[in-house]
Amino acid sequence: MPKSPTGPEFATPRQRAAALRQLRKAFTAGVIETGDEARRVASLDTCRVAHLPDAVIRPATDAEVAAVLRVANKARIPVTTRGAGSATTGAVTPIRGGWVLDFSGWNDIRIDAVSGYAHVGAGAVNAKIDEAAGKAGWFYPPDPSSKGYSTIGGNIACNAGGLRAAKYGVTRDYVVALEGFLPTGEPVKWGLPLKKYVSGYNLRDLWIGSEGMLGVITRATLKLIPRPEARTTFLAAYKDEAAALRTVREILKARVVPSILEFIDRQTLDCFLRKHEKAGTLGSLPFSVKPGEAAPAMLLMEIDGDKAQVRRQQKPVRELLGGKALWLRQARDEAAAEALWKIRRTCSQAMFQMGDTKLNEDIVVPLESQLPLLKYTLEVKKKTGLATPTFGHAADGNFHVHVMFDWDEAAQREQAKASIELIMRKVVELGGAITGEHGIGLAKSPFLTLQHTEAEIAAMKRIKDALDPNGILNPGKMFEPFDMWLQPRDRAWRFPWDH
Amino acid sequence: MPKSPTGPEFATPRQRAAALRQLRKAFTAGVIETGDEARRVASLDTCRVAHLPDAVIRPATDAEVAAVLRVANKARIPVTTRGAGSATTGAVTPIRGGWVLDFSGWNDIRIDAVSGYAHVGAGAVNAKIDEAAGKAGWFYPPDPSSKGYSTIGGNIACNAGGLRAAKYGVTRDYVVALEGFLPTGEPVKWGLPLKKYVSGYNLRDLWIGSEGMLGVITRATLKLIPRPEARTTFLAAYKDEAAALRTVREILKARVVPSILEFIDRQTLDCFLRKHEKAGTLGSLPFSVKPGEAAPAMLLMEIDGDKAQVRRQQKPVRELLGGKALWLRQARDEAAAEALWKIRRTCSQAMFQMGDTKLNEDIVVPLESQLPLLKYTLEVKKKTGLATPTFGHAADGNFHVHVMFDWDEAAQREQAKASIELIMRKVVELGGAITGEHGIGLAKSPFLTLQHTEAEIAAMKRIKDALDPNGILNPGKMFEPFDMWLQPRDRAWRFPWDH
Repeated sequence: MPKSPTGPEFATPRQRAAALRQLRKAFTAGVIETGDEARRVASLDTCRVAHLPDAVIRPATDAEVAAVLRVANKARIPVTTRGAGSATTGAVTPIRGGWVLDFSGWNDIRIDAVSGYAHVGAGAVNAKIDEAAGKAGWFYPPDPSSKGYSTIGGNIACNAGGLRAAKYGVTRDYVVALEGFLPTGEPVKWGLPLKKYVSGYNLRDLWIGSEGMLGVITRATLKLIPRPEARTTFLAAYKDEAAALRTVREILKARVVPSILEFIDRQTLDCFLRKHEKAGTLGSLPFSVKPGEAAPAMLLMEIDGDKAQVRRQQKPVRELLGGKALWLRQARDEAAAEALWKIRRTCSQAMFQMGDTKLNEDIVVPLESQLPLLKYTLEVKKKTGLATPTFGHAADGNFHVHVMFDWDEAAQREQAKASIELIMRKVVELGGAITGEHGIGLAKSPFLTLQHTEAEIAAMKRIKDALDPNGILNPGKMFEPFDMWLQPRDRAWRFPWDH
Repeated sequence: MPKSPTGPEFATPRQRAAALRQLRKAFTAGVIETGDEARRVASLDTCRVAHLPDAVIRPATDAEVAAVLRVANKARIPVTTRGAGSATTGAVTPIRGGWVLDFSGWNDIRIDAVSGYAHVGAGAVNAKIDEAAGKAGWFYPPDPSSKGYSTIGGNIACNAGGLRAAKYGVTRDYVVALEGFLPTGEPVKWGLPLKKYVSGYNLRDLWIGSEGMLGVITRATLKLIPRPEARTTFLAAYKDEAAALRTVREILKARVVPSILEFIDRQTLDCFLRKHEKAGTLGSLPFSVKPGEAAPAMLLMEIDGDKAQVRRQQKPVRELLGGKALWLRQARDEAAAEALWKIRRTCSQAMFQMGDTKLNEDIVVPLESQLPLLKYTLEVKKKTGLATPTFGHAADGNFHVHVMFDWDEAAQREQAKASIELIMRKVVELGGAITGEHGIGLAKSPFLTLQHTEAEIAAMKRIKDALDPNGILNPGKMFEPFDMWLQPRDRAWRFPWDH
């Protein structure tokens, strides 16, 4: 990994060392680590662009967080906050070195079962929050696929979405109040554990999705909703993407609100089927496929609610889903539902048959642009020769377009880079968003100017300067176009969730 | 009404006149009015602190809006945007004079019935949006009591709430995208008509609730949801506030989500009953009252959903609501529901029996502080001798505490001012918010420092300076403590909705 390029605006190595000594004096309960292993863990997120920080700081108290920011501001040292490191964009990589502020230990969860709130530390893991809520009959719906390990601080920093967003919304919709620190070190609270609050400017929502650049989140209050009583799962196959996406349109037009409506394209399913063919496990699937048979496109759908509601909706849903389908399955129990889900849960890993490296672009397009986008992914495939398997959350238009390639093949790398650029341009042309739930970080920074005008970006930067005059918080992100392709990746690193 | 005090930072009258001449040249389709009548209309909102602007500008095109802001920035002329003028806080009063930018004509509404969006101009009236949505089977839930005349631009500017917020959320929860202009005149779009979008900093939500101080909203895309099929209405009476509010707690604890849960205290109901007693119409009420009988406290509750859901929930709701009640009524049809609603719809006007002037404070408290707050309103009544009738949205803790007095009685005015201060301090002490749906404007500006720390307010001001370096947009609001009591009110003005 390369050494920290110390920008002229930041402290010199000598100044950094002096600041760290000063900080150690302020630390009585927290931990400051400078060992290689700790620094390597903190050097990257799942996009694997790695950069070693000078130190990893695990504060134990609010006073220690304040001390970090005060010292860092005075000495001009980059500070990058971190939870699990499961971001996909390099947003967590301390690309200018400096200090990583690790909140993974701030993982307390307290459920207010009468008012329906979860009071959590920034390091609380998403699924643990929902688990605690569930014990009291409540539900925390945002479910990024990283929910088993990603922290709420990170979820808030990138406004994480998930599979259930079209019905239940995203992280932002559940954040009632935030506590934390301004980049300059003052403690602040944005909002209170209340369901209405309009006093002053809303910096809570400005912080949400600002990728750790405008403040340090230490605690959050999340809104909970009553847990749905029942759900039922359907899987339907279609001859192609057009038939599947026309069905999506019919479902939404009928004002049916699915809790899940996952689209899987033929390329993705092909990877899945080939994997099972190789393993000789085609027979284990909940539908019959002959070896070598052409893969269909699919929709995985769930509806939830109270028991009677779910029961009543089944017939119209079967009619809508089944209308253009080759076949339709409905799960009669939890085990059968899990069998239908297996395709969606494992298709992402199955893509590695098409290349050792996967780019996962979480773009969003309007309903009327879903089919044009899918057609375009096939054009890109034809043009570049790289596979573009795509699945995603069809009810909200948030598709994960993947580009698969072999990293060590220089020509493929070039084509992969070109593919992403083509896709990003097309998405914006189709009235869409370059990111629906991952954020900008380093990976999407070259495309920010496709999405926003100069005046819009200038306004964002003025806000950054207003709140973080020394630019210490997560520097080098979002506004500075970063060329991912020039930087070697730490491909050897194994995350706890890698399999 | 007093003349505009031209602050040293703003243009002199001569400079303003020159700028207006310049602006007229840029206007080809829009209207610039300087007549007394137009200026008086634009001088106030429902809190009646009035200040005449120099001109009322009704732009017809985006280019004209840009021209207004460009000229105003160059000449340093205050610009205050306006919809219907139904704000309750003086947020719309052009307190530093200058130009009022009137968007009431920008009232186009277009429903996307497949994707479930309303695309609207800033001047579109709230109820008209829901009406248009309803024709296509969709629902726009935010329902401030001003919904019949307030515009969406104003609803967004103060993040208006309403009666259904505990189940359906507030304006912010439905704003998907905004179009408009930076204070410096550049056109911007924050968000797109998409259900997921996390690119760049979220200025959309920073604008929402910023009371017209950070940008000019011209258009919005609103999320719609499927219209609930059925509802049923209950009215229950309790011997006192404690019994009613304990019932609220039981309902929420059972994770029942009412679409409406309105609390009415004994003072409020007493006003209502006395009005009917005077009019000899006690017999018209949907319950029997003997003249002079002590007024109970009340809960008005609705549940909604699909027909079967509503049917199934009736019994548990009757048990919860009726447990501590003196009596309970359930409406069997729409006419009966309207009869139960009459109390809530007319109780506010009935308060004028207690004084010719009403202060309406939209505070919010946590569930556990509801009863302490109500008890405190009675203490304030005892201390000041002024009536403090209170009703509000009990499921979200947003109570409208009123102070009734006669404006021309100097002693009562003093007591009214003292009452509000006592209540605001108590609300913050109870962990609550000084405003849940009206905003700060002029009226709440003296209390901003109760709610926020110095660092929080400084951060807000830095954002204001970053986006509006000349401070032209809605100056004199929020951060400058304004003494409402020193300024005569335009009490003679009749708003179209006054009755």
